Amino acid sequence: MRIAVLGGDGYCGWATALYLSKQGHAVTIIDNFVRRQWDYELGVQTLTPIQPLPQRLRAWEQLTGQTIDLRVGDICDYEFSAAAIRDLQPDAIVHFAEQRSAPYSMIDRQHAVYTQVNNVVGTLNLLFAARELKPDCHIVKLGTMGEYGTPNIDIEEGFLEIEHNGRKDTLPFPKQPGSFYHLSKVHDSHNMMFACKIWGLRATDLNQGVVYGTVTDEVQMDEALINRFDYDEVFGTVLNRFCAQAAIGMPLSVYGKGGQTRGFLDIRDTVRCIELACLHPAKPGEFRVFNQFTEQFSVLELAQTVKSVGAQMGLKVEIDHVPDPRVEAESHYYNAKHSKLADLGLEPHLLSASLLDSLINIAVRYRDRIDPSVFAPQVNWRAGKNERRTAAIPAPEPVV
Amino acid sequence: MRIAVLGGDGYCGWATALYLSKQGHAVTIIDNFVRRQWDYELGVQTLTPIQPLPQRLRAWEQLTGQTIDLRVGDICDYEFSAAAIRDLQPDAIVHFAEQRSAPYSMIDRQHAVYTQVNNVVGTLNLLFAARELKPDCHIVKLGTMGEYGTPNIDIEEGFLEIEHNGRKDTLPFPKQPGSFYHLSKVHDSHNMMFACKIWGLRATDLNQGVVYGTVTDEVQMDEALINRFDYDEVFGTVLNRFCAQAAIGMPLSVYGKGGQTRGFLDIRDTVRCIELACLHPAKPGEFRVFNQFTEQFSVLELAQTVKSVGAQMGLKVEIDHVPDPRVEAESHYYNAKHSKLADLGLEPHLLSASLLDSLINIAVRYRDRIDPSVFAPQVNWRAGKNERRTAAIPAPEPVV
Repeated sequence: MRIAVLGGDGYCGWATALYLSKQGHAVTIIDNFVRRQWDYELGVQTLTPIQPLPQRLRAWEQLTGQTIDLRVGDICDYEFSAAAIRDLQPDAIVHFAEQRSAPYSMIDRQHAVYTQVNNVVGTLNLLFAARELKPDCHIVKLGTMGEYGTPNIDIEEGFLEIEHNGRKDTLPFPKQPGSFYHLSKVHDSHNMMFACKIWGLRATDLNQGVVYGTVTDEVQMDEALINRFDYDEVFGTVLNRFCAQAAIGMPLSVYGKGGQTRGFLDIRDTVRCIELACLHPAKPGEFRVFNQFTEQFSVLELAQTVKSVGAQMGLKVEIDHVPDPRVEAESHYYNAKHSKLADLGLEPHLLSASLLDSLINIAVRYRDRIDPSVFAPQVNWRAGKNERRTAAIPAPEPVV
Repeated sequence: MRIAVLGGDGYCGWATALYLSKQGHAVTIIDNFVRRQWDYELGVQTLTPIQPLPQRLRAWEQLTGQTIDLRVGDICDYEFSAAAIRDLQPDAIVHFAEQRSAPYSMIDRQHAVYTQVNNVVGTLNLLFAARELKPDCHIVKLGTMGEYGTPNIDIEEGFLEIEHNGRKDTLPFPKQPGSFYHLSKVHDSHNMMFACKIWGLRATDLNQGVVYGTVTDEVQMDEALINRFDYDEVFGTVLNRFCAQAAIGMPLSVYGKGGQTRGFLDIRDTVRCIELACLHPAKPGEFRVFNQFTEQFSVLELAQTVKSVGAQMGLKVEIDHVPDPRVEAESHYYNAKHSKLADLGLEPHLLSASLLDSLINIAVRYRDRIDPSVFAPQVNWRAGKNERRTAAIPAPEPVV
């Protein structure tokens, strides 16, 4: 298939682009490198020393003989995004090209507005470009399980059959997103559902859980292909952050009680889910929703697991409960369905001690790049404006 | 009360500002006159010859001795909106300041993006300004009944108790908006609900039905206070448009079968609903939703009523069914609740023959200002891009 991977220089996007290329698809990455810019803004960097994208792509070609094309630009610029769709004529557009951090969107007004405008306008542009230039292409859009919030009922995959006053309908599942970022994804979902209805576009909204891990078969082929490993309080996903803390002997920072339960998945399942969605496209006019995760854990359960695996590795790992900077239930009912991707053939990599061991080992390997000052939450949901202190990043030193 | 009326130069905003001033509230209008600009863009004009806002305000002061203050600017400019909130310290912010036409948002990509960015960013700015500068003020926001779409179950006021797999929760009513404009209001609603939750703001979301009429007690005090009467296909609401068509002997243009059923209300009820919401504010942290309409009609029922009243006035009125330019169900179940404003004391002005008679008479009075070319729908939901022909507006001539 001809597949455009938007945001292909990011954490999930890069692993996905390589995986799809390996499977023989003709992949083009579209990216404007703003993810790297956010690191400069925040004074943080990925634990793993990632290469500039052109180097990454050259290494991929040398190793595999396969090429991944690149178009550099911002999908919020319609001239750019329309030209890309017109030239590439993709069978599928995999859309990771959004600001994806909840804390980033909660820093202050500017970051909230930026996140919503960037994400909503980028997606609107794609919908209009597809309508105009490639109406039968399949849009595979990354949403988030965070769109649902934590309702006191089972979470279904996108839609819910409701009986009310003796009548029935199947309606979009009610959304209670918990940050301006999560809200932007809810806005996108509504816009996409509408575009499919009026224009007959086909789209899959992947409500992804929290991703962990950094290695895939492709990424580990060579150091030049190494993937991001974000551990800071703004972009670091929780399990990766815990592993980085364990690696340098810092206590794992659990927000509040840690009863916050979410869906999680290994990045190796992310890439496979994307391919499964592409291989089994939505029908014309169909807007379908898959919940893309494999297991549920509470944050405290994850911390305890990291502590226990760390102990087996000889690391002394403590768990610290810090005041929750977010406004969220610290313990709640949570039961989210996730059978549609399994029905298409997903065989999940469940969280195992060996995966955690390997993840902590990566963190140990790059421990000298860890800036311990960027773990502590500095973005408080209750404030309208958070002054982030940007730390001086210690220069990378050779590992002893 | 100190009340800021955002969008106070528009159709509902102007009538509301006068009404609130008459009741003794200290009113400030905030407007950037973009509504007048859209008329220039589209080559249309209000049936009634409205005065520039400063003239309107001078006339109001001369007639009543009461002043309405004015601040000219765009709430998408945070410096402007924050300064207004800081200086005024309003008890209530009545927020009409959005692009409110579904067809306008469906013209093409630029108009869709403009509508969503303008509406979402303006509302985000207000939420942040309130959080920062007047956190206890009550935000009274105009939403639309169109946020709900036409589900096959009864529509509740904002929230729905759902039982699913043996568990219960009260969740936001699922939304199925039918244009990029209606989508922008859904985005706003989600953003506001979240801001109330995290910051303890207080807000009322008024999901308003289709407004008809142009006259209120205040507006009719003097010709200089006359309100807008939009009859064009982009900004004209359906009943006003039918009355204008009846006035010049053009057939009433019903889209498709005309079974589209919606909630409607008289503009005299709009202004009273706004005051009722202000007088009975939401509690801190509360995001509440009122469905603001008084009666349900199908479009065809309205056309038949206009035809019948027109006949009594000696007008020959035909009904024409034109292909529906929108993607919507042309006949469907519709039963929307609307008891919360009645509980606060709303005494509705139901649609009567005498009101319709008076509305048609206004249209007859200004019939020489009617451009018959702007009735026909030129914005097709199924197209990604609509070329609107802007007609040369006939110069107003004295009525014979």
